[in-house]
Amino acid sequence: MCENFTKTKTKLPISQYICITLTNRPCSLYYVCFVTLLTVMQAGFAFLEAGAVRSRNTVNILIKNALDSFFGGVSYWLVGYALAFGKGNPFIGASYFAHSGLPATMYAHWFFQFVFAATAATIVSGAVAERCDFTAYIIYSSVVTGFIYPVVTHWAWSEEGWLVNGRTYQFDGELVDIGYNDFAGSGVVHMVGGIATFVGALALGPRIGRFDKGDGSPVEIRGHSIPFASLGGFILVFGFFAFNGSSQGSISGEGDGATVALAVTNTVLAASGGAFTTLVLNKTKYFGDSKWSFLTTLNGCLTGMVAVCAGCNQFKSYFGFITGVLGGIAYMVTTWLVLKLKVDDPLDATAVHFGGGVVGVLTVPLFSYDYGVFYNWDVKSGYYLAWQVAGLAAIFSWAAVLSLVLFFSLKKLNIFRVPYEYEVKDLSGV
Amino acid sequence: MCENFTKTKTKLPISQYICITLTNRPCSLYYVCFVTLLTVMQAGFAFLEAGAVRSRNTVNILIKNALDSFFGGVSYWLVGYALAFGKGNPFIGASYFAHSGLPATMYAHWFFQFVFAATAATIVSGAVAERCDFTAYIIYSSVVTGFIYPVVTHWAWSEEGWLVNGRTYQFDGELVDIGYNDFAGSGVVHMVGGIATFVGALALGPRIGRFDKGDGSPVEIRGHSIPFASLGGFILVFGFFAFNGSSQGSISGEGDGATVALAVTNTVLAASGGAFTTLVLNKTKYFGDSKWSFLTTLNGCLTGMVAVCAGCNQFKSYFGFITGVLGGIAYMVTTWLVLKLKVDDPLDATAVHFGGGVVGVLTVPLFSYDYGVFYNWDVKSGYYLAWQVAGLAAIFSWAAVLSLVLFFSLKKLNIFRVPYEYEVKDLSGV
Amino acid sequence: MCENFTKTKTKLPISQYICITLTNRPCSLYYVCFVTLLTVMQAGFAFLEAGAVRSRNTVNILIKNALDSFFGGVSYWLVGYALAFGKGNPFIGASYFAHSGLPATMYAHWFFQFVFAATAATIVSGAVAERCDFTAYIIYSSVVTGFIYPVVTHWAWSEEGWLVNGRTYQFDGELVDIGYNDFAGSGVVHMVGGIATFVGALALGPRIGRFDKGDGSPVEIRGHSIPFASLGGFILVFGFFAFNGSSQGSISGEGDGATVALAVTNTVLAASGGAFTTLVLNKTKYFGDSKWSFLTTLNGCLTGMVAVCAGCNQFKSYFGFITGVLGGIAYMVTTWLVLKLKVDDPLDATAVHFGGGVVGVLTVPLFSYDYGVFYNWDVKSGYYLAWQVAGLAAIFSWAAVLSLVLFFSLKKLNIFRVPYEYEVKDLSGV
Repeated sequence: MCENFTKTKTKLPISQYICITLTNRPCSLYYVCFVTLLTVMQAGFAFLEAGAVRSRNTVNILIKNALDSFFGGVSYWLVGYALAFGKGNPFIGASYFAHSGLPATMYAHWFFQFVFAATAATIVSGAVAERCDFTAYIIYSSVVTGFIYPVVTHWAWSEEGWLVNGRTYQFDGELVDIGYNDFAGSGVVHMVGGIATFVGALALGPRIGRFDKGDGSPVEIRGHSIPFASLGGFILVFGFFAFNGSSQGSISGEGDGATVALAVTNTVLAASGGAFTTLVLNKTKYFGDSKWSFLTTLNGCLTGMVAVCAGCNQFKSYFGFITGVLGGIAYMVTTWLVLKLKVDDPLDATAVHFGGGVVGVLTVPLFSYDYGVFYNWDVKSGYYLAWQVAGLAAIFSWAAVLSLVLFFSLKKLNIFRVPYEYEVKDLSGV
Repeated sequence: MCENFTKTKTKLPISQYICITLTNRPCSLYYVCFVTLLTVMQAGFAFLEAGAVRSRNTVNILIKNALDSFFGGVSYWLVGYALAFGKGNPFIGASYFAHSGLPATMYAHWFFQFVFAATAATIVSGAVAERCDFTAYIIYSSVVTGFIYPVVTHWAWSEEGWLVNGRTYQFDGELVDIGYNDFAGSGVVHMVGGIATFVGALALGPRIGRFDKGDGSPVEIRGHSIPFASLGGFILVFGFFAFNGSSQGSISGEGDGATVALAVTNTVLAASGGAFTTLVLNKTKYFGDSKWSFLTTLNGCLTGMVAVCAGCNQFKSYFGFITGVLGGIAYMVTTWLVLKLKVDDPLDATAVHFGGGVVGVLTVPLFSYDYGVFYNWDVKSGYYLAWQVAGLAAIFSWAAVLSLVLFFSLKKLNIFRVPYEYEVKDLSGV
Repeated sequence: MCENFTKTKTKLPISQYICITLTNRPCSLYYVCFVTLLTVMQAGFAFLEAGAVRSRNTVNILIKNALDSFFGGVSYWLVGYALAFGKGNPFIGASYFAHSGLPATMYAHWFFQFVFAATAATIVSGAVAERCDFTAYIIYSSVVTGFIYPVVTHWAWSEEGWLVNGRTYQFDGELVDIGYNDFAGSGVVHMVGGIATFVGALALGPRIGRFDKGDGSPVEIRGHSIPFASLGGFILVFGFFAFNGSSQGSISGEGDGATVALAVTNTVLAASGGAFTTLVLNKTKYFGDSKWSFLTTLNGCLTGMVAVCAGCNQFKSYFGFITGVLGGIAYMVTTWLVLKLKVDDPLDATAVHFGGGVVGVLTVPLFSYDYGVFYNWDVKSGYYLAWQVAGLAAIFSWAAVLSLVLFFSLKKLNIFRVPYEYEVKDLSGV
């Protein structure tokens, strides 16, 4: 925990940087950034989704997006934070339920972590659009915010976590701590959100008419308002910038300013790389529909930003751009795959967050200027890569199993999907 | 005034914290936060109202909301600030008109206070929507920004104010200064705005067709765009966060970081409490229309945030949540009451700002962890409660009387309401 | 360059203030402000334009605006920054291409300057709306971001620049450095953008039907959504505030806090002055259409803010207001002139940015409290005025000649304008 924080590691996960900073120098403007993040991400998802669904479901999607952060707030207050950052064992925490016993200096940390948790949960909302029941929506978003996501943060971002601590290895007489590295959450936030998204969409089944009854070929269901969707997209782009920027903005030591600037620069270049790649790929007739597509390009841009989250503080500019390009490719591939599997993910959130997240987790040990395989090509860099793959596998397994249990339980209980008559009319009554 | 500020009190009102901070440590990023606030609150109200009125009046409401902050800026520059923070007596200030003689170190304070003043004025705009004349709109918003609101801030937030200074009492040999406490303006900003709102709507009369000609029962006039209204709502939620966050963000002393974090946490929990309460109450058939209502829930959330403004720096988490719940209840009750009185307040601004403001002023002396009745139940806490009630009564009386004079004068002069033919067609010509 | 920065001048241009601050005290929150600026300006222009064009071209204008900052980012990374701030001669820089050899402490400076460059390029987008080809759009915005704009910043904002360094004069035995002053870019950013805007619109020719075939009189083409336009407007107003605020927010020396506050206050008053002037002028039958026009007032407000960019740190409040009034007048005159010249600038971007920019450049030496003609009326103040006029002429000539070459080349190559059949249907295929 913060107040006992003593270890010094080369690459701290974000939560521990924040700890140090907030307790040592309470520069309260960070809070403003955090609340910006919170409301910005919520509003961004809300409008992206409102524009991408059919007109009749606009209000329904808006109310869901507006509410999940509030229910999530209560859930994270009562349970989630305790599991994530309470004192416990390397696997799970178990104190500070409902803020009980929480030291005054830790409220800042709670708030910051809540913003991340709410984002992880709200990623799912797009995948279940236009057919998910209101009560089921509240239940699953509370579970994601209060249980599934917090445990992963305990592993990767808490002081006790088994992933962040890794193991100590000896190389030429030098002792090196090697573990899982994920600065701004490509794996912790976006992979978890992306997996829950896919499983949610899988369990819920496609919207009526999304796949042809005869040959099963996909039938496009067009959103009703590109302007609203693009408003949401602009807001999300801003939100991602702010995530990477403000997160790392917390480092106030003298030597760290340059790192921060590099990170933000990488975020711009990764966004450019992702947007450029999807724009061009979609224009070719092999990968897309030969058009300049706004929503595809926007998603490519977002995927590039997701991909660079994990390593934006450790990459040279050119690798920032390349990570964005890889994110753009991952987006195109994942979208194609999801559609092949006949899963209906109206916002392509799986491709953005899972596709981008995986790229993010894997590029860190490859491109890191400090210890990356690309620069070093030695056993040590291999261990970094191995730990990163282990983290990927662990997060994937946890999120996948828990999501399967959660969403298929909701399905079995018959409360997940709205009745047929509401889906074909509108969801305002449920 | 700032430069002579020497007193040290346990609970300073917001303006004095700001004073100390800005003069001692000119961390200029606060200005960015302030301008965010200014434009965010204006845009939030503009879109909330644009969505909630009929399509034909959209442009009219947008231009009014865009302009009032500019006219208010001139009015606060020339007169308002002088009355609020000029040197004078405990009741009113009288120097610094048009910035004349204003020390260079006070410009920051002017700007910050202007943002609050503009917000107080713009609260009214929703209540007079779809029928208020353009010139009358400019007049009343200049008067609120330039006179009605500034005097209240002089009482409660200036160094000389009779409310903030209160009196010195003796308890067991200890001398204690007890006065009115309102950290981020539940009473000073929101009650004043809410009262002016109610009186404005009362003087203007309901929109044509709002109440049935026969039995006088209310007839709902539906807004034309839930997405615009919800855009406004999201922006306002962000604005409120920023208000409480950035305001308190100005405290840069070492020991204060924890207080700030608590305050922002309380704002989240109050918003959750308010949203949850109105969502559930509206779903019951006794208090609402048995539906999940987006606009009601949004208003409940905003009311919770208004309610927690006054004491968010002094409450434990659970009282943050409870204050939000009380705000939600106050919203439902006030809305019902306003409708019973046959007053047409299209945005329910009275319920949000007056209802929430009263809850905010009264909860401070009850729930404060330092001196609240709930924790202490002694004579001293009774005095705090008494001063808070006195402040409530004084602010209520001043704002009510002045608003009655202002709005009924406009009515008597026959310039308040647009002619019948414009109201039934559209307001673009007036 | 930053790391070698040693000179001390009374009025540093913005880029050098930023240098000092970022390298000495890496207060990383500035990055968050910068990215806010970037995304905010892009989104603001996008929605202002989306609302002001015909419904069928909404998506096209949104994708263009979303993409130009990404292409601009790559262009500024590879070339632009090197020309602007690389080591070279007083006219142009020539190092740091693609960040090669860029010191770690300079990444912050790169990012900050990129935001300005992207804004200069995106100003043009409104003028070419509804008829510019997609590929041509990408080409010209890359050239503006990568070449035309950077050279001007080298002159006026880099350490070596001939405009900023000016010459040393002797007055009564005192040696004084006098050069071109442009704190937040009235000339450097807005004049350059405004000139490119006008030339672009001129080369492209008016939209089909914009001027009557018979008598050549203008025929209004109405935008399809005032709410979207006003959303864009609100965002831009916020963006301008943030530009002037955060820019100057970088000054963290003890004595500078007051200057910053003054600057932000001046920005509010200039916005008020500009809005007020255009509102009233447009209502008279001589200058406008006798109506309260929302878009005209909004543009007036923006022009006031553009005009005060250059000197907002040096004006007394009343000159802040007056500069806004002059900006409003310049807007009305320029709009009228552009229309007389039968140039179709759908968003009136020439009037806002060129009109306001010229007022900004010229008011500094007149109204500056330190050395302005108005206060001093001596030879020294005359030299300041002369250098300012020289800067104006140099920037005008450079931007005009280069823009003519750029846009008329695109026209000659026959790739600038979409084919007739797309323009009358929609631009989604090109």
